Amino acid sequence: MSQIEEVASGVVRREPTSAAAVLMDAHKAAELASQYGIPVPAQRECGSAEEACRAADELGYPVVLKALGKEIVHKSDVGGVALNVRDRRSVGEQARKVLEEVPGTEQILVQRMEPAGTVEMIVGARRDPIFGPVVMLGLGGLWTEAFDDIAVRLAPVAGGSVAQMIEDLRSRAVLRGARGVPGINLEGIGAVVASVSRLIADESTVAEIDLNPVICDADRVVAVDIRILQQPDPGVPAEHSPRSPQQLDALLAPRSVVVVGASRNPAKQGGRLLRYLIRHEFQGEIVVVNPHATEVMGCRAVPSVDKIEFVPDLACICVPAETAIDVLEECGRAGVKAAIIFGAGFSEVGGFEAQMRQQQLTKVARSYGMVVCGPNTAGLASRPVGLCASMGASFEMGDGPLPHGSVAVVSQSGAIGGSLLSRLRESEIGFSHWISTGNESDLTIGDYLGWLARDPETATILLFVEAIRDAEAFRAGCEAARANGKAVIAYKTGRSEVGRAAVQSHTAALAGDERVYDAFFKELGVIEVENLQQLIDAAIVLEWQPAPIGARVGVVSASGGACSVVADECARRGLELPRLSTAARTAIEAAIPSFGHAENPVDVTMQINVEPGMIGIATEAMLQDDGIDAVLVMLTSNADPPAIEVARGVVRAAQGSHKPVVVARMGAEVLAPGSLRLYREARVPVFSMPERAIAAMAAVASVGLRSLRADETDTSTTSAQEEAR
Amino acid sequence: MSQIEEVASGVVRREPTSAAAVLMDAHKAAELASQYGIPVPAQRECGSAEEACRAADELGYPVVLKALGKEIVHKSDVGGVALNVRDRRSVGEQARKVLEEVPGTEQILVQRMEPAGTVEMIVGARRDPIFGPVVMLGLGGLWTEAFDDIAVRLAPVAGGSVAQMIEDLRSRAVLRGARGVPGINLEGIGAVVASVSRLIADESTVAEIDLNPVICDADRVVAVDIRILQQPDPGVPAEHSPRSPQQLDALLAPRSVVVVGASRNPAKQGGRLLRYLIRHEFQGEIVVVNPHATEVMGCRAVPSVDKIEFVPDLACICVPAETAIDVLEECGRAGVKAAIIFGAGFSEVGGFEAQMRQQQLTKVARSYGMVVCGPNTAGLASRPVGLCASMGASFEMGDGPLPHGSVAVVSQSGAIGGSLLSRLRESEIGFSHWISTGNESDLTIGDYLGWLARDPETATILLFVEAIRDAEAFRAGCEAARANGKAVIAYKTGRSEVGRAAVQSHTAALAGDERVYDAFFKELGVIEVENLQQLIDAAIVLEWQPAPIGARVGVVSASGGACSVVADECARRGLELPRLSTAARTAIEAAIPSFGHAENPVDVTMQINVEPGMIGIATEAMLQDDGIDAVLVMLTSNADPPAIEVARGVVRAAQGSHKPVVVARMGAEVLAPGSLRLYREARVPVFSMPERAIAAMAAVASVGLRSLRADETDTSTTSAQEEAR
Repeated sequence: MSQIEEVASGVVRREPTSAAAVLMDAHKAAELASQYGIPVPAQRECGSAEEACRAADELGYPVVLKALGKEIVHKSDVGGVALNVRDRRSVGEQARKVLEEVPGTEQILVQRMEPAGTVEMIVGARRDPIFGPVVMLGLGGLWTEAFDDIAVRLAPVAGGSVAQMIEDLRSRAVLRGARGVPGINLEGIGAVVASVSRLIADESTVAEIDLNPVICDADRVVAVDIRILQQPDPGVPAEHSPRSPQQLDALLAPRSVVVVGASRNPAKQGGRLLRYLIRHEFQGEIVVVNPHATEVMGCRAVPSVDKIEFVPDLACICVPAETAIDVLEECGRAGVKAAIIFGAGFSEVGGFEAQMRQQQLTKVARSYGMVVCGPNTAGLASRPVGLCASMGASFEMGDGPLPHGSVAVVSQSGAIGGSLLSRLRESEIGFSHWISTGNESDLTIGDYLGWLARDPETATILLFVEAIRDAEAFRAGCEAARANGKAVIAYKTGRSEVGRAAVQSHTAALAGDERVYDAFFKELGVIEVENLQQLIDAAIVLEWQPAPIGARVGVVSASGGACSVVADECARRGLELPRLSTAARTAIEAAIPSFGHAENPVDVTMQINVEPGMIGIATEAMLQDDGIDAVLVMLTSNADPPAIEVARGVVRAAQGSHKPVVVARMGAEVLAPGSLRLYREARVPVFSMPERAIAAMAAVASVGLRSLRADETDTSTTSAQEEAR
Repeated sequence: MSQIEEVASGVVRREPTSAAAVLMDAHKAAELASQYGIPVPAQRECGSAEEACRAADELGYPVVLKALGKEIVHKSDVGGVALNVRDRRSVGEQARKVLEEVPGTEQILVQRMEPAGTVEMIVGARRDPIFGPVVMLGLGGLWTEAFDDIAVRLAPVAGGSVAQMIEDLRSRAVLRGARGVPGINLEGIGAVVASVSRLIADESTVAEIDLNPVICDADRVVAVDIRILQQPDPGVPAEHSPRSPQQLDALLAPRSVVVVGASRNPAKQGGRLLRYLIRHEFQGEIVVVNPHATEVMGCRAVPSVDKIEFVPDLACICVPAETAIDVLEECGRAGVKAAIIFGAGFSEVGGFEAQMRQQQLTKVARSYGMVVCGPNTAGLASRPVGLCASMGASFEMGDGPLPHGSVAVVSQSGAIGGSLLSRLRESEIGFSHWISTGNESDLTIGDYLGWLARDPETATILLFVEAIRDAEAFRAGCEAARANGKAVIAYKTGRSEVGRAAVQSHTAALAGDERVYDAFFKELGVIEVENLQQLIDAAIVLEWQPAPIGARVGVVSASGGACSVVADECARRGLELPRLSTAARTAIEAAIPSFGHAENPVDVTMQINVEPGMIGIATEAMLQDDGIDAVLVMLTSNADPPAIEVARGVVRAAQGSHKPVVVARMGAEVLAPGSLRLYREARVPVFSMPERAIAAMAAVASVGLRSLRADETDTSTTSAQEEAR
């Protein structure tokens, strides 16, 4: 099975309802909910039509009848629900009909009919195999499908977070009420959410719970339909074996490396690895295991790992899957503390044998206390020690080692990770580390994150995420990154695989992977981007410019049309274009023609070609405005030689400021090689299109806002990001 | 006033309610609505509390009281509404209170209180100064702000279109009802929409009408609050003076050009224009008007236009705004049929004098029957006759004339238009025409569209739109383009300037510019793109590859992670990834490793480096599959030399097929110069990121789908696009 199939089929992430899951009887479900303080309509479980009539008399009319039975999953689809039954005679008729005609009916639930409310809500929870209990709140009934207006949180959810969940809903104005129209009982619905959160936490056999609809008025909150899916108690949760960041030192900052399976042939994988190790100027010792040579590519060769007179920190294992376990064992016996296993043929190919092979690998590694990257990994690179333990084509670029910088890339796809590396290099961005996590049999993405969060060389961590396998390690890594002032920017793939039709409850569909990841990332301060270009572009801005402390952007352009495009894109991305201070406006007015526009967005007009210094003057004036956090210079064709003058002004302004300056320049590059060189040398990012520049600025503004909030809560935090620069 | 200010302040597009607009009395509004068959609650207009009590007795309790008065705009904000008044005594009390305490109250409206319904809708219409009456339907009351669930159409709207409007709403499932929950009276609400459409068409003094909320149940549809804004009848609509496409021949395919204001100095505007005219190899005669020379840059010079012994088709007027009118008049007298006026200083700078100057210009042009491009334009280029009547920096690229192709660019911003040109040239795309429309004092974007729609050299028309000034001309242009099988792709800016707070009625805010443009474009088959990169990328695909006939995409990659990214992006853009035919799957299975994935998206695995031909084989197999309309080859680092083999296979497959093939290649370009050259030579588009490739394919799929629909209705249509290739 390929990686995509693995993601698509959900092997990695979700088996929300195992084969053993059963739907709890509706009456029992209501009783359980009731025990947790969830208001439900008065109801009786009845075995016959006569019993149903008596129950209805007791409860008062009108009533609802529902078929009960293990086999009945969607009652209303099979005619198993009779609404608004108004008298004794009709109850008798309907009850008999259901008992006789609806297959699988064992009993009948008679419920007092709740009149329609102001709105119908849905409240639910499910037990995610990775993230644990997840709680959701949203518009219920038919509104659910229409607007998908749902807020999701990881449990436990209490008072404050429930208020935040309501705030997240687009329908909040309806729920709150306004202009004489009453809203709903927000305290009541909040209590139901908290109850559901407690219920799924306490009742270990509950896999999913759906209250849909919960009828809500200004006073009333009542859950008229409750579905609970049960599965056997999983007992103790799967072992979570966190690695301390120190354990990863041997992998990510090794002093010596042994390569097993290095060929003399540099076209072969092992040969290429050795060639890269040498070319990228590894600062420690390299030993090769090769029974047929005493030297390979200038490196000392030994017949086996135990023949090395010292214990290497890291073993690079470039042998086929079949022999990798033996080699790992040999390394373990020799005391090697870390290994990279490149070979494919483990869990990613599917099938029993391959799965077993990966489990065996994990077992061997743990028994020797080794940390393992992979298997099926494209390896890793660690710039501070000059390590390039990879064979990816992207490491062919340039002549020497990777350019040094403060960006780290951690990718669950070696191919995507390699491409990101090459595109960032193309933009002259430097790196601290590059890691392809492979199958994550041992170390998961969170473990790497935890190490990088503490690495003084790293300021920005880019993640390509397919699936998080260890939520605790990921959480710990993010928290360390936040505490140390490092930006974590993630692109998450696998969003289209939700497969809503296949799941049994609304909660499983609505609080699916996408929303749970969003909630998790948001909680942890991870900045999510929409596409891979944004991941690259945000890194460029963070690497080259200071992070802004807010989302208030000043824009200067020489084209009215371009100003309009920028205004649209800023609105879309949530960036503000505030009015300028009087000082800024006055300075700009003095510099630009009378038919220009001295307000934000500033339009210096096509006079730019005659007076190219205007752009720099406007940039500087806006950078000095306390109401502006960042400046975007929006250029269209802007050809040399005037463009060189424009660039001089912009660069001077940027260098004199602690705020970021970003350039969008739409014209072909060949029109302005001189000015583009000036920007590059001054590390002022230039993007080819306004939408790219603005998306990057928006992502980076989130970093700044996050730090600001962190500063407010803990002013003693020193910014490692600042230090690293 | 700069261009952005002009757009932002709405000078161009909207003055929805002129200063003279007044709110119609609520009672009169209800009576007018009633005349058009709109159901309203029974109601009485009362002058005193006693009268209100009598009216309430007649109508039956509970009732609603509303303050009536010219000054009262938002009744509920000033306490001018009393809901649910249950008895005579309360009516008396409340009525007295309103009459005494609510400023501006003249009378009281007593209305029977309608009980809450299943949903509240909003129905409205406004008279757009450009597009005429516009009708909207959506969720009303507090739901309006929450979900903005609104459908907009240009009037008139009758049966079929109302059904389509309901279909456009996300709340359609709620409105229709499902699973035993009743929907609303769809016929009833449809009739209300049709009535509102008739009302605004017939009542020429009605500027805006809002029915909000319209309470709806399974049976009941009743408009409980009606607001009508009136303004004086504008009388005859503004003159629409369409130009026949033939009239534009002198402008866009001139046989001779006179340049007025051409300097010897090639750095000055007029000098640059002349230099470009020569360099781009204009195929007709060029004469220069210059009283001080007999020759400028090798072109014959005469002292004035009337001294030319023949009548030039086109005059390029490069003189300051102050003298442009005199020059235009001189040209008109000499019989010149077309002019381009480059100078700024007309309506775009704002102010009375400049406005008058532009009006004068229009008057002169019309009096001589001339067509005018501009003023304040960056000019135009017409490749078939070698005309480059512009001074934009983008025309400096390369050595000779523009590369010849079938893409036409029409831009309302000269600067953006120039940038688009240079970026398309960078991608080696050829052009038929390039037009900067300027202030559009005479010819508007629709006139150019109409001409290009009939131009055999043009297949794809790219529009950068700030505002449509002549809806009829635009409509006619789009219809001609559709009839002749040409693709019209538009980027519309000015979306963030809606300024909802400033408008008086909901309809004006909700059926604002953005939605009206969307409705108009959709109706006319114009393909709207989200950003400028997409405009460029869609043109590249259309210029180099056949248009697909549907949205079913086959994907091949060598990375599971990349497949997952592609699946997400396709889902976002509405592209399908269908299962492959057995034949295609079998062919692919035979070519790729057993641990690969022979289903769509196909993953040939990293074995690509050993067997680079696999990608081509999979591409070919999918192109031969009748269930696939287009193929996306998704590559990551993919370095030469294996990348060259990959490219050979892909190019061979593309060349043997009538379906489009597009490549996304994420790795840095320096890794694969050889393969990139092969793709370029074979005109297979390569995009740097999957999201770019997929957005372009989605836009192009709309072109194909549109043609398909056109073919279904009129099978005799010959595709001019095909011919042009």
